[in-house]
Amino acid sequence: MFPELKNDLLLKALRGDTVERPPVWMMRQAGRYLPEYMKLRDKYTFFERVETPDLACEITLQPIRRFQPDAAIIFSDILVVLQALGLEVTLNPGEGPRLPNPVQTSEEALNLTVPDVHDRLHYVMQALTLTRKELNGEATLIGFAGAPWTLFCYLIEGRGSKDFAKAKAFYWQHPKAAQHALQVISDTTILYLKAQIEAGAQVVQVFDSWSGLLSAEDFNKIAFPYLKQISEAITEVPVILFAKGSWYALEGLAHRTNATALGVDWCVTPEYARQAVGDNVSLQGNFDPARLLSHPDEITRLVHRMINRFGAQRYIANLGHGILPYVPVENAKAFFDAVKSWGN
Amino acid sequence: MFPELKNDLLLKALRGDTVERPPVWMMRQAGRYLPEYMKLRDKYTFFERVETPDLACEITLQPIRRFQPDAAIIFSDILVVLQALGLEVTLNPGEGPRLPNPVQTSEEALNLTVPDVHDRLHYVMQALTLTRKELNGEATLIGFAGAPWTLFCYLIEGRGSKDFAKAKAFYWQHPKAAQHALQVISDTTILYLKAQIEAGAQVVQVFDSWSGLLSAEDFNKIAFPYLKQISEAITEVPVILFAKGSWYALEGLAHRTNATALGVDWCVTPEYARQAVGDNVSLQGNFDPARLLSHPDEITRLVHRMINRFGAQRYIANLGHGILPYVPVENAKAFFDAVKSWGN
Repeated sequence: MFPELKNDLLLKALRGDTVERPPVWMMRQAGRYLPEYMKLRDKYTFFERVETPDLACEITLQPIRRFQPDAAIIFSDILVVLQALGLEVTLNPGEGPRLPNPVQTSEEALNLTVPDVHDRLHYVMQALTLTRKELNGEATLIGFAGAPWTLFCYLIEGRGSKDFAKAKAFYWQHPKAAQHALQVISDTTILYLKAQIEAGAQVVQVFDSWSGLLSAEDFNKIAFPYLKQISEAITEVPVILFAKGSWYALEGLAHRTNATALGVDWCVTPEYARQAVGDNVSLQGNFDPARLLSHPDEITRLVHRMINRFGAQRYIANLGHGILPYVPVENAKAFFDAVKSWGN
Repeated sequence: MFPELKNDLLLKALRGDTVERPPVWMMRQAGRYLPEYMKLRDKYTFFERVETPDLACEITLQPIRRFQPDAAIIFSDILVVLQALGLEVTLNPGEGPRLPNPVQTSEEALNLTVPDVHDRLHYVMQALTLTRKELNGEATLIGFAGAPWTLFCYLIEGRGSKDFAKAKAFYWQHPKAAQHALQVISDTTILYLKAQIEAGAQVVQVFDSWSGLLSAEDFNKIAFPYLKQISEAITEVPVILFAKGSWYALEGLAHRTNATALGVDWCVTPEYARQAVGDNVSLQGNFDPARLLSHPDEITRLVHRMINRFGAQRYIANLGHGILPYVPVENAKAFFDAVKSWGN
């Protein structure tokens, strides 16, 4: 059904096979720093871009054409799962996404049920199938979803927040209802990721963007069980878990989930991360996205240093968070090129 | 000149003297969650409140009257140091503070010079002297300043930011000019803290609110040297350094600065913090401010648990960041009371 995978560097690094250099991709590599993306952004709304398989495919491929990374991550948004749960999501240019009617009562949370993801999110699966074909085996295709705790944050607050204190308070004040919501999100996410895999995703990543707001103890209650469930349910392809900011959780995620790899942000040193996860889990990260505003020569030096510190095996070169919108394209290119020139 | 200190629990915990329970205070304890503060806020602008010694004193005393914590922290703002450097700071209700004309070029950064802090910030010193007298020895008076890196963030960006990437980029693109600015801020801060001590501050705390955005390596370059300088220059009273989010820096801050105590946020476990800092430095923190939205009984339970985990010696019970504006007063009270009832 799909073209043969010619570039299996990412899968090798995930399996722990010996590689000559680490694979490289970049979180949000299809995005606002690319002039070709901005042209489509001028023409189509965010939801048109996400919900039109041709556009999502085209946007996913833009950085592949320009930089030839080893992986393509499907252009989409973590909040589509909340849309599938029946919540309205709006996006006005210049603002972050908003849920005009977030969940406010335990009754509303208890009323959430697992939707038919094939029906509600068919456009993501179509985009994946199309992209997998168009990629022609030149790069591995990554599907993704937001982690339950991170989606719960938006479900309750309805928008971004510095501390997501309202979401935390909802959990503590209505634990049963919160756990129901988290379980529905987890179950939906598992079905959604399986559908993505069926449609062509060769690896999946789960983004827990706000896990770092939780203490270690709260993380173990509110975030960890769902990450574990998802990692254990997805047996078809490798699973990358990225619990941003949760340095304290690396050891548990490595040893007590079924994750193939763990993402790390730039506040975690490579040495700490390796020591925490041991030899059987790959690591992904962790270049400070702001460091892409350095001179390209400095980027090259720092990327080589990062690879030397992580070691080239069981390692995926990436940023520690999404690329910033105003990074010069040549600086992004320096990042990709530096990984490819490492060791030469 | 000043009334005798009747409550020296904070100083004891900082010195490592044996105490029957840890001292307690709360970051931003004088603030928006207090109805008596909101009354003054309706009547006076932010700058009137900060720059009028009677008002700053009154606001500082409000939580003391209500909760009898062991320390009072002077009501002020970290950005007054940037005002002293000649930058304009504005504050519109509902927004964070803004610098309408932040530093944008290396020339502007190189032109910064150390001001006469007694002249520019006399109102803070007057407020401290007045408050120290009014406290009548019932609580220890804490002075404070922002850390150089955190002030540099505002100096360059002119406002709050999720990532302060512009400030980081400025440092990498203009290291000489950035280092000059950081050194001027440090020198000013040292003079400012010494003036605060002369005026009545019995302990000082340095807030590096944005240090957690830096990788360990960048922290060691951009934040650590200035925290070290300040801690070594202030020999008159104990110095508390709070590098929020920089869990990786605890060991270095404990062993290679002159800090008496280190603040920790709630993402650091008590066990990790103790192990990192050793036996000669006190710890302060680290209750998740959002946890104050739990039921008061649960707050009591969690505070007792926190003290048991940190241990009661060389420990100052506090939040891991400032109290949130919408915390019910009775929940804040539960926090203070729980520390005082610990061990009974």
